[in-house]
Amino acid sequence: MPVSLYDFSAPRLYLDAPLGAGAQVTPDRDQSNYLLNVLRLGDGADILAFNGRDGEWRMRLIALSRKAVVLDAQEQTRPQTTPADLHYIFAPLKHARLDYMVQKAVEMGASALVPVMTRRTQSTRVNLDRMRANVIEAAEQCGVLCLPRVDDDVKFDRLLAQWPADRRLIFCDEDAPVKDPIAALRAVPRGPLAVIIGPEGGFDPLEREALLRLPHVTRLSLGPRILRGDTAGVAALALIQSVHGDWSA
Amino acid sequence: MPVSLYDFSAPRLYLDAPLGAGAQVTPDRDQSNYLLNVLRLGDGADILAFNGRDGEWRMRLIALSRKAVVLDAQEQTRPQTTPADLHYIFAPLKHARLDYMVQKAVEMGASALVPVMTRRTQSTRVNLDRMRANVIEAAEQCGVLCLPRVDDDVKFDRLLAQWPADRRLIFCDEDAPVKDPIAALRAVPRGPLAVIIGPEGGFDPLEREALLRLPHVTRLSLGPRILRGDTAGVAALALIQSVHGDWSA
Repeated sequence: MPVSLYDFSAPRLYLDAPLGAGAQVTPDRDQSNYLLNVLRLGDGADILAFNGRDGEWRMRLIALSRKAVVLDAQEQTRPQTTPADLHYIFAPLKHARLDYMVQKAVEMGASALVPVMTRRTQSTRVNLDRMRANVIEAAEQCGVLCLPRVDDDVKFDRLLAQWPADRRLIFCDEDAPVKDPIAALRAVPRGPLAVIIGPEGGFDPLEREALLRLPHVTRLSLGPRILRGDTAGVAALALIQSVHGDWSA
Repeated sequence: MPVSLYDFSAPRLYLDAPLGAGAQVTPDRDQSNYLLNVLRLGDGADILAFNGRDGEWRMRLIALSRKAVVLDAQEQTRPQTTPADLHYIFAPLKHARLDYMVQKAVEMGASALVPVMTRRTQSTRVNLDRMRANVIEAAEQCGVLCLPRVDDDVKFDRLLAQWPADRRLIFCDEDAPVKDPIAALRAVPRGPLAVIIGPEGGFDPLEREALLRLPHVTRLSLGPRILRGDTAGVAALALIQSVHGDWSA
């Protein structure tokens, strides 16, 4: 969370366009409105921009009119980073808590967000556009350079039936006995990872059995207290990033 | 987070009264209203109760009238646990995010919540009653048996001036180089602990220097991304509970 890596107070925008020396980018209408009318920036103001591929760039604002701007790339302020290959699979919560869950997963450096519909999942439909908007907002605010992919929601049985042979699953199992989670994670070999967090009330018994039958699954205990889904997500990702990810680089 | 330790669907109440074999407790008016009119429980219904000292008890509801109930202790369902001696010191965020921060700290098993007013803290007053209500609600919902103490808010300089000689401070320092946080925590000797999380925008340079001058301070890096205060709190507590607390018991 190094605030000092760059100026946290500078506005920071995700731009869906190539960034590089000499690049000029026209932000979309909402972004132009935000720069001109919310932040009240004028011609010559500097902002930071990223696209998930080309690192972070200082961009100079060129005001073409009271409604239209162009952003002119000045210099790269940070090189692109590569996230851990870490999928975050979660039973979606409702509304505000889902927003929160998505923001947290972005801050914690997940590389893909996978909503899974379990038997006890209360939410029946997932608003993927809202999830993507939350990903971008969290990335803009938290200095994140890599945007996690947002997958379509998938039914639990289908997720398991299609499980790739090379991806290790870390299963936050509320029925696992309390046991050193760091030792459990250290026993996981290097390679593609996923972590799965159940719905409120947990996975149902058949789902638990199916998870434990996967060839490459690690049960993870997150202590003796019940954690809400979003709390469990941050806790599990903190441990995984510390043992296998970019927190100990 | 073992849901299976007890019936998660049973209503669970904090009662500010001794609990033991034969104890009869009169819940307060709000709680009675909740049991009778929100949950619509009738005479003979069972609920779970805890007081932070005597473990968790199954209580039978005796309806005295349409407004008044007594709860009659039947049997202890879980013995009292002792939390890690782990103070959670944090710059309060505003409104909903503060509620969230408090709930998370309860789920994560902090033993005391200490709001600290730093130079960059945006919130000028802390509603301690609201914090305490959030502690109770989170404990009720998450099966927590120990309620953390809620301290009065304290100014940063005073907190440091009064720092007890025997308590190690884990300082989530956003300027610390990214470095294995588990190794950093393993180097902390056993004993009373505290963790401190700064405000949005971080501690100011003088505050950082003062923190680093404490005799027993450990700098903790939480990775290369900026984390919001509530995210940093859960992440730090997950790592601390795993290395020093009750997650590896």
